[in-house]
Amino acid sequence: MKSSFELEQVEKFKKIPQGKGVVLGPGDDAAILAGCRKDERLVFCGDMSIEGVHFDLKQATLEDVGYKAVARTLSDIAAMGARPLYMGFSLAMPRSHRTRIDQIMRGARELLDSTGTSLVGGDLSYAPQIMCDTWGIGVVKRGKYLTRAGARAGDLLYVSGPLGGSYQSRRHLRFVPRIKEAAWLSANIPVNAMMDISDGLALDLYRMMTDSGTGAVLYADTIPFNSGCDIFQALYDGEDYELLLSAPAGHRRRLENHGFTAVGEVTDDNRLMLRMPTGKTRALRVKGFSSLS
Amino acid sequence: MKSSFELEQVEKFKKIPQGKGVVLGPGDDAAILAGCRKDERLVFCGDMSIEGVHFDLKQATLEDVGYKAVARTLSDIAAMGARPLYMGFSLAMPRSHRTRIDQIMRGARELLDSTGTSLVGGDLSYAPQIMCDTWGIGVVKRGKYLTRAGARAGDLLYVSGPLGGSYQSRRHLRFVPRIKEAAWLSANIPVNAMMDISDGLALDLYRMMTDSGTGAVLYADTIPFNSGCDIFQALYDGEDYELLLSAPAGHRRRLENHGFTAVGEVTDDNRLMLRMPTGKTRALRVKGFSSLS
Repeated sequence: MKSSFELEQVEKFKKIPQGKGVVLGPGDDAAILAGCRKDERLVFCGDMSIEGVHFDLKQATLEDVGYKAVARTLSDIAAMGARPLYMGFSLAMPRSHRTRIDQIMRGARELLDSTGTSLVGGDLSYAPQIMCDTWGIGVVKRGKYLTRAGARAGDLLYVSGPLGGSYQSRRHLRFVPRIKEAAWLSANIPVNAMMDISDGLALDLYRMMTDSGTGAVLYADTIPFNSGCDIFQALYDGEDYELLLSAPAGHRRRLENHGFTAVGEVTDDNRLMLRMPTGKTRALRVKGFSSLS
Repeated sequence: MKSSFELEQVEKFKKIPQGKGVVLGPGDDAAILAGCRKDERLVFCGDMSIEGVHFDLKQATLEDVGYKAVARTLSDIAAMGARPLYMGFSLAMPRSHRTRIDQIMRGARELLDSTGTSLVGGDLSYAPQIMCDTWGIGVVKRGKYLTRAGARAGDLLYVSGPLGGSYQSRRHLRFVPRIKEAAWLSANIPVNAMMDISDGLALDLYRMMTDSGTGAVLYADTIPFNSGCDIFQALYDGEDYELLLSAPAGHRRRLENHGFTAVGEVTDDNRLMLRMPTGKTRALRVKGFSSLS
């Protein structure tokens, strides 16, 4: 679970006064900015990937390191319902590794190329361990961006794929950011809130419901989990990078036909509950994987 | 001087094929991007500031660290003739320092606020040493951005202030990015090429002349240097973050009235020369401070 210290930092960051042109400041998956065409908004966000914190080289290849650094930021852009355009990549590494930059950038380029994202800038320096920091710019139709804050009581909650076991299976190194799924949603479904699941369904649901001022009941018997996992791993493992979204109940069939799974419903109180297969509900425990905890 | 390894990395980076919308890719102070209003371009760039590489805490306060991280990126935006709008700030630091994040961000905010730049996003993580990575978005009128590549034979070369001794004087921690000067230039002078001087006048001039396919003669007796420094420190110390620009000779008086100093002229060969106060010219030695060397 995120420490109170980290939550405090996020809260502080949210309170920074914002200038003209800032439609949505810090605190969501990305910022929403004016400065583009009248009918569009810019989406801007970044993520660090640090050796020993977000990956270790016993499990990850250098190609994986570059791939994951890009994937985390593209996942945030997708979570806003946006399309990625440009990326900047900062890389620091030990001098002894420097001939291996090509391997990191090969992994990065693989995903940048397949998503049509241009690598437009970078900085290179030295540090005792590998550190990547990727900042992305995307674009979204004005008024069509999706935050964590729009869920409404009566909505159903959906995820874009099975959860749990990402670290053990190495999936966290090679996950596919849900850009296509976000584009389809944007064109077809009046989604009320969306985010990517990076710290576990339970903690990320808690964030969405807190920002929306709503509660939720999750259905234990419908939450999809990866083979070899159980429901608790699906709730708490983290690093899934699937989309979590809240949409009016009427769109269930269409969403399910497109690979989304209804995993719960939004309520008008502030509680987070888990409905067990027996029909009984109990309080959902909120704890999550966090690389910062 | 930059090692051949680093120059090779920059060259590789320049060769990355760029997608639609990329007006200017990697290799200059910043990328120039479409995606904004029809009559404008986005400017996008980032810089890492790493403890033990770009600063040490024997000399720098934590406020200085935050200030310098922001200043380096704003200087790059100014060097393109652009105006900063938004910034993302990634920060990694030892767990033992974490209560001191406020100090770093106070230094960052000081400069962000005074330049009207909105801090719109950030990432926070842990690392054995302090690492800041700042990515900025600016805006420039279409066709008005300034690269390193436009210098023309017959132009005069100017700098925006005195050079040398930045590290010893701690000026590198508290320099003022030349945003106002860049705005004045953009509105008043048909500048042909511009960049900020981060690695010493000699090396950065070499870069501008190489990218422009021109040569230059510097005037040893007009290069302004800081008190306590000599001409060689002005040429080679680095970390000045003054603007270096190339403009048609006819604008000299106006530029000098606005605090710019003519330091040389652009020639049509590929040589870099230094004209000594005696009137004799000799080859300019190109070596520069580089945090990566």
